[in-house]
Amino acid sequence: MTDALPPGSVIGILGGGQLGRMLALAAARLGLRCHIYEPSETPPAAQVAERCTTAAWEDRAALEAFARGVDVVTYEFENVPTEALDVIEAIRPIRPGRRALAISQDRLTEKTFLQDLGLATAPFSEVGSADQLRTAAETLGLPGILKTRRFGYDGKGQVRLREGDDLAAAWAAMQGTPAILEGFVAFSAEVSVIGARGVDGAVACFDPGENVHEDGILRTTTVPARLAPSLAADAVLLTGRLLNALDYVGVIGVELFVCDGGLVVNEFAPRVHNSGHWTQTGCTICQFEQHVRAVAGWPLGDGTRHSDVVMENLIGNDMDRVPELAASGAALHLYGKAEARAGRKMGHVNRIVGHG
Amino acid sequence: MTDALPPGSVIGILGGGQLGRMLALAAARLGLRCHIYEPSETPPAAQVAERCTTAAWEDRAALEAFARGVDVVTYEFENVPTEALDVIEAIRPIRPGRRALAISQDRLTEKTFLQDLGLATAPFSEVGSADQLRTAAETLGLPGILKTRRFGYDGKGQVRLREGDDLAAAWAAMQGTPAILEGFVAFSAEVSVIGARGVDGAVACFDPGENVHEDGILRTTTVPARLAPSLAADAVLLTGRLLNALDYVGVIGVELFVCDGGLVVNEFAPRVHNSGHWTQTGCTICQFEQHVRAVAGWPLGDGTRHSDVVMENLIGNDMDRVPELAASGAALHLYGKAEARAGRKMGHVNRIVGHG
Repeated sequence: MTDALPPGSVIGILGGGQLGRMLALAAARLGLRCHIYEPSETPPAAQVAERCTTAAWEDRAALEAFARGVDVVTYEFENVPTEALDVIEAIRPIRPGRRALAISQDRLTEKTFLQDLGLATAPFSEVGSADQLRTAAETLGLPGILKTRRFGYDGKGQVRLREGDDLAAAWAAMQGTPAILEGFVAFSAEVSVIGARGVDGAVACFDPGENVHEDGILRTTTVPARLAPSLAADAVLLTGRLLNALDYVGVIGVELFVCDGGLVVNEFAPRVHNSGHWTQTGCTICQFEQHVRAVAGWPLGDGTRHSDVVMENLIGNDMDRVPELAASGAALHLYGKAEARAGRKMGHVNRIVGHG
Repeated sequence: MTDALPPGSVIGILGGGQLGRMLALAAARLGLRCHIYEPSETPPAAQVAERCTTAAWEDRAALEAFARGVDVVTYEFENVPTEALDVIEAIRPIRPGRRALAISQDRLTEKTFLQDLGLATAPFSEVGSADQLRTAAETLGLPGILKTRRFGYDGKGQVRLREGDDLAAAWAAMQGTPAILEGFVAFSAEVSVIGARGVDGAVACFDPGENVHEDGILRTTTVPARLAPSLAADAVLLTGRLLNALDYVGVIGVELFVCDGGLVVNEFAPRVHNSGHWTQTGCTICQFEQHVRAVAGWPLGDGTRHSDVVMENLIGNDMDRVPELAASGAALHLYGKAEARAGRKMGHVNRIVGHG
């Protein structure tokens, strides 16, 4: 731990949502303090962090003061504007590093990077015009998914295209936003691996979880995933390869499709990931603490699974079920959000279903 | 959950030490907010709570403002002055209630209460003068322990007396503080039970842990305790009896001596307890969340032990071992205290040693 930040050091977190909140709670366990930077008022993470700066991503003075007041900077979402990161990076290290962030921010760059690394992805083609969309559809075939290159999450910025759809209209609806067309991948399940890499290069992965989505939003993660042992090993190995190739520091979430021919990488997120929330109940050290350990230069913790867990997201009106869930014996996690809007992640519940 | 405080409600916590800090972290998981009241500057709990009032226990206006700003009040230590509690209780409920607090604040009252309940305690006698001490020593025999009736913790306010010791000098050293003499109890081990009782009267106890003290301070707790099944059942049953007799709401820590004739109650603490820290790693729901659930009127959670744990306190210079412990695979908990003084509890470490 020669380069480790000592207890009492301050972790700066860009973004004050539930991921920032749970990072702050994990940092507190290690005696580390947190300073949140978030443009919107009363973010969930501010309730549990020692300090919160409420300022815009364009506020250079606020960004500089924030960076000077912390020892290292991390982020809870990958769409922090590049200019804000430039200001911060001139003052303090940002972990995970800028390269992982830049690659993951752009679906075209991401898929190209993954393929160059020898990892399987869905077939894809760049789409910057109606003509390119037509050509891409002919090359890849339909059905497929037209996705914005940047700023997509929880199924936003995506449209499914089927044979016979009006491609010109589909492109027009994108309003000129650079996009890619992804070809169809026949998969039997989606799994994800939460991996971590320390400053010292040590790599540790949590057991793969099996994800179920509804309306483009993660609904449940079940661990262990129903996955042949060889594929589970593949999933962990390719995550390690990705972490090393990116010279990564922190936790990464890698989404994979389980196909007849093996695993296909859907995408990765350079941060703690919703599909890793089960680790709070299933492991001694959860993904949030693992991330804090990595960015603070500490050794990674023991992420061995001691229990099998089903994680269920609580979205919007699911908050009505809180009284019942509180009495159910499961571990409830609520994010401190005042208003339960449709599609908004309000909390999650981890249920132990067996011993690992 | 009809009387339960909804998510977003505010728990007021009297005292901002490590127990208050870990209560605040547990409350955050349930979407509850915390307001700390603590006379000293920069308390550990303030780093993770939404609000902190820094004011004296005698500051009536501050106490009233605090009480009005929260939905329920609890405490992390049992020596909150009575007058402060009177001010608060006129405005908001205090959980656990005043009776448990009053009884536990006075060793004479506590032991009398326990005996009236039919529970075994060490033999004891009130000591308010040198004469009374002499009589008590004759009646109970020596060795024994002279203890202040109030304000003792971590072995403070106690002196061991042996046959032939100068009793007049021992009493003079107490400077007139009301005391008791406790007779000697031959025990093979000290165990403790962390129990909880909800607003609805439901009772749940964590598995008994076995405690080892050094210099009057808890050093380790090992769970499960090496305890015959019948004694383990006794320990849990007497804790339930105590909780019911006190019409208790919240978590209680009950320290027991294991003797040839059965269990002898040493004392109880009307709060979360150092010997219950293992539950953070060994159970789905830990003692801190159990306490928050109870005082917030929520149903108790599932405190079943999924793993065997050894908890070790980190005291003073033990902080030098943090780099080694961080790499050891155990779960580290640090309290955010700036200065590592001798005898000061700085953190603890929970190590999984088997599966429950």
